[in-house]
Amino acid sequence: MPKQVDHEARRRGIAEALWRIASTRGLDGASLRDVAAEAGISLGQLQHYFSTKEDMLVFALEYMEGLAERRVRERVLALPGTPTPRTVVRETLAEMLPLDEKSRTGNLVQIAYFVRALRDERARAKAQQGVPLLRDFLAGQLREAAGRGEVGADRVPEREAMLLVSLVDGLTGYTLLDVLGPQEALELLDHHLERLFTP
Amino acid sequence: MPKQVDHEARRRGIAEALWRIASTRGLDGASLRDVAAEAGISLGQLQHYFSTKEDMLVFALEYMEGLAERRVRERVLALPGTPTPRTVVRETLAEMLPLDEKSRTGNLVQIAYFVRALRDERARAKAQQGVPLLRDFLAGQLREAAGRGEVGADRVPEREAMLLVSLVDGLTGYTLLDVLGPQEALELLDHHLERLFTP
Repeated sequence: MPKQVDHEARRRGIAEALWRIASTRGLDGASLRDVAAEAGISLGQLQHYFSTKEDMLVFALEYMEGLAERRVRERVLALPGTPTPRTVVRETLAEMLPLDEKSRTGNLVQIAYFVRALRDERARAKAQQGVPLLRDFLAGQLREAAGRGEVGADRVPEREAMLLVSLVDGLTGYTLLDVLGPQEALELLDHHLERLFTP
Repeated sequence: MPKQVDHEARRRGIAEALWRIASTRGLDGASLRDVAAEAGISLGQLQHYFSTKEDMLVFALEYMEGLAERRVRERVLALPGTPTPRTVVRETLAEMLPLDEKSRTGNLVQIAYFVRALRDERARAKAQQGVPLLRDFLAGQLREAAGRGEVGADRVPEREAMLLVSLVDGLTGYTLLDVLGPQEALELLDHHLERLFTP
């Protein structure tokens, strides 16, 4: 009887091998062959799933985004009571910060993608897609908060949401450089949210 | 008579060659030989000035920082009247954003350093030095503004300064990715400053 291959598991294994490479030495120098070696499979086996580096990158990025979304959802669901928009916003943004080893790796991978996107048109188009989704999600929460009187009615939700996303990105960079400690980064975020969530 | 060599000009020429490489393909793959070729000199001539890649990187980074500081100073001095702390803060931060081709290149170089600093201890130590200086400079301006009643006395200058630096870094990333237009990034910064400079 031929051995059953779990194709989804193999794809995930390849994506995880790619992350390990991205978080230690970036993506630019990584070939399909390097990723296959890291995943412990042959180049031929890898090419059965991804015929180009770009396909592999896109899958790995989407898989990582899916995991991040699940972590946020679990984080919010683990909180007692019904989460307020403020809690949802706070937990979503805190999950983006490199507060532990896992999210530190995730952030290093995203930076590897970011650097690639600066020079590569296709990667840039992909990188551009994610931000409006995140911004609109946060803006929706801010709009709900404004409806509950928890955010001033003069705040423009999309603008505040983009400021939040940008701020967290900057805090992430300085945390990765050890200019800020994880706790310090979180406190700065909380401080900004404290101002924003003022009726 | 032997040809006079302007050593400072040559060092600057090398630094500028390094920037061109950093802004197009990053620093990780760039060897001393690549930089010499880009600067139009021999490897031996380059090594007369910089014996290691690290020395060259540090010089190029400091030279770039010096130019950026001069641009800020010129920008502030070009304004009519005596600049207020708010103007100084605004112009300093606006100068950091990739609003034109020149500062776009400068930002790409800084990102190349940033990526290097994530993986290299010595480069990280160097990258860490610059941030507190910038933060303290901005905090000093905010303290002065608070003294003039232009910023609320309850604001902690160091905290607000670090939020500003982080925000501008995040806006820079999204502007380089063309998620934000340069004008949009500037408007978001101005919006944040508008809130901060409230008595």
